[in-house]
Amino acid sequence: MKFDIENYLSTKKLLVEQKLQSLLIPGEDSPTKLEESICYSVLAGGKRLRPILMLASTEAVGGDICKALPVACALEMIHTYSLIHDDLPSMDDDDLRRGVPTNHTVYGEATAILAGDSLLTDAFYVIANEGNSCGIPPGLITEIISDISAASGSRGMIKGQAIDLELQGKNKVTIDQVEAMHSLKTGALIETAVLSGAKIGGANRGQLSKLQTYANAVGLAFQIIDDVLDIEGGGEIGKSPGADARNGKSTYPEVAGLEQAKLKAAELTEQAVNVLQDFGDNALPLKEIALYLGARNH
Amino acid sequence: MKFDIENYLSTKKLLVEQKLQSLLIPGEDSPTKLEESICYSVLAGGKRLRPILMLASTEAVGGDICKALPVACALEMIHTYSLIHDDLPSMDDDDLRRGVPTNHTVYGEATAILAGDSLLTDAFYVIANEGNSCGIPPGLITEIISDISAASGSRGMIKGQAIDLELQGKNKVTIDQVEAMHSLKTGALIETAVLSGAKIGGANRGQLSKLQTYANAVGLAFQIIDDVLDIEGGGEIGKSPGADARNGKSTYPEVAGLEQAKLKAAELTEQAVNVLQDFGDNALPLKEIALYLGARNH
Repeated sequence: MKFDIENYLSTKKLLVEQKLQSLLIPGEDSPTKLEESICYSVLAGGKRLRPILMLASTEAVGGDICKALPVACALEMIHTYSLIHDDLPSMDDDDLRRGVPTNHTVYGEATAILAGDSLLTDAFYVIANEGNSCGIPPGLITEIISDISAASGSRGMIKGQAIDLELQGKNKVTIDQVEAMHSLKTGALIETAVLSGAKIGGANRGQLSKLQTYANAVGLAFQIIDDVLDIEGGGEIGKSPGADARNGKSTYPEVAGLEQAKLKAAELTEQAVNVLQDFGDNALPLKEIALYLGARNH
Repeated sequence: MKFDIENYLSTKKLLVEQKLQSLLIPGEDSPTKLEESICYSVLAGGKRLRPILMLASTEAVGGDICKALPVACALEMIHTYSLIHDDLPSMDDDDLRRGVPTNHTVYGEATAILAGDSLLTDAFYVIANEGNSCGIPPGLITEIISDISAASGSRGMIKGQAIDLELQGKNKVTIDQVEAMHSLKTGALIETAVLSGAKIGGANRGQLSKLQTYANAVGLAFQIIDDVLDIEGGGEIGKSPGADARNGKSTYPEVAGLEQAKLKAAELTEQAVNVLQDFGDNALPLKEIALYLGARNH
């Protein structure tokens, strides 16, 4: 029987979005402007790639995805905060995200900054609290908070964003610099998604090492394809085509050429698929996600 | 023998600042602009009130302050992030903080936003990692992360900042609204500082309940006195006198009157001191801090 990846993705997306809603929608009173702006960005759609990768990784090692779900939502909250702040006028100054006006365009800069700050802070609240309720042992919760904060802080995602801003408009940018930037800005959080999911599922060291290779390959391939789509049009993130070039952004296809970039993405996808061989059928979702992302054209 | 509060405060301040330096100064290479801007704001001085309150609270229940020190530094990192973001042009638009130019004035808005984001994220990294190395049990680390994220997120400090922005320029603001705003914006983190310190020190329920009363009283008194000093001049936070009034801020002395505000601060200080009676000499630092803050004129 063929694995239905479209169905898998939409089912998991729904699961994540329902849980996100229950975590975000305030119970009492009418929502404040800040609460509205938080919900606006979190529930504006998107692939939910990080949480789905996390759940698929828990499944790959035979674990229970219910335990991983709150942490998966926390990752999506951190991802959303980073988008809200990246879009700000002083950063990338983007008006559109996921096809709708960016948070600051609708709610103003001050509220957008606070919405991002809230999502980042509340993500750790969700991990500490809900992780506990789900029966994740406290030692593992602490380890996951350490992993996720390292991946998203000054050692990871934020360092990547700082490098991205520094590289903007520069003439001589190398492929190594672009790869290093992506590995921090996008790769680190994707890696943590896969590894945290596996840890919650009870992975052993050998499995974690292979899943790390998988995550790095998928993370870079994903970013390269995003940048290719930005040039060719139809990029999923809902920005108008060519936005990166107009912002003076150094992207993989721009530095290495369009054909070389597509070749690299295909190689990375193959590498990701190959490393899953020992996991058997449990890793079918992870494998199909890599192939799906590698072949996407939107 | 008289307790030397000035000496106590300066000794603890040094301890906190040395630990902060070891947590922040990067080991290798020359620092990036982002790292520079983080160090600039964290090491720009300040009372270190939150970390010192935390350490004094650990002492009040007979605990070991070495265990509490990393968490105390994390609280100061969160406090500093909130100052950097509050000072941004779209928020309070302040040029001076602690007597020196604000972060965004020196490093630009984008870097200032990222510096704040980094400090917030890295604070949780410090608690999870260093807390572990110090021998705080994982269950307690998780509880403290839950407490601190609740106090600083959309349920606490950020909610307070959002209310503060909403109240700005409004004519009819009540004392209750101002108190509620302060209790979220400043009080929540001070309460967590005191309670986390006590929990790490091994406090029992009765002690925690009394220290909560202490923290709430000291937190509000501190804020009222800050606002009084803003009107009378010489405010410690290094802003020019009258900055609140110019920003259309609703402060306690503005709403209740200057004399009433001073009276309230004195009452709160007395309440804080009285609740410490059962703790004996261990709580002498907490008591003297309350008296010192209540009497300060800078």
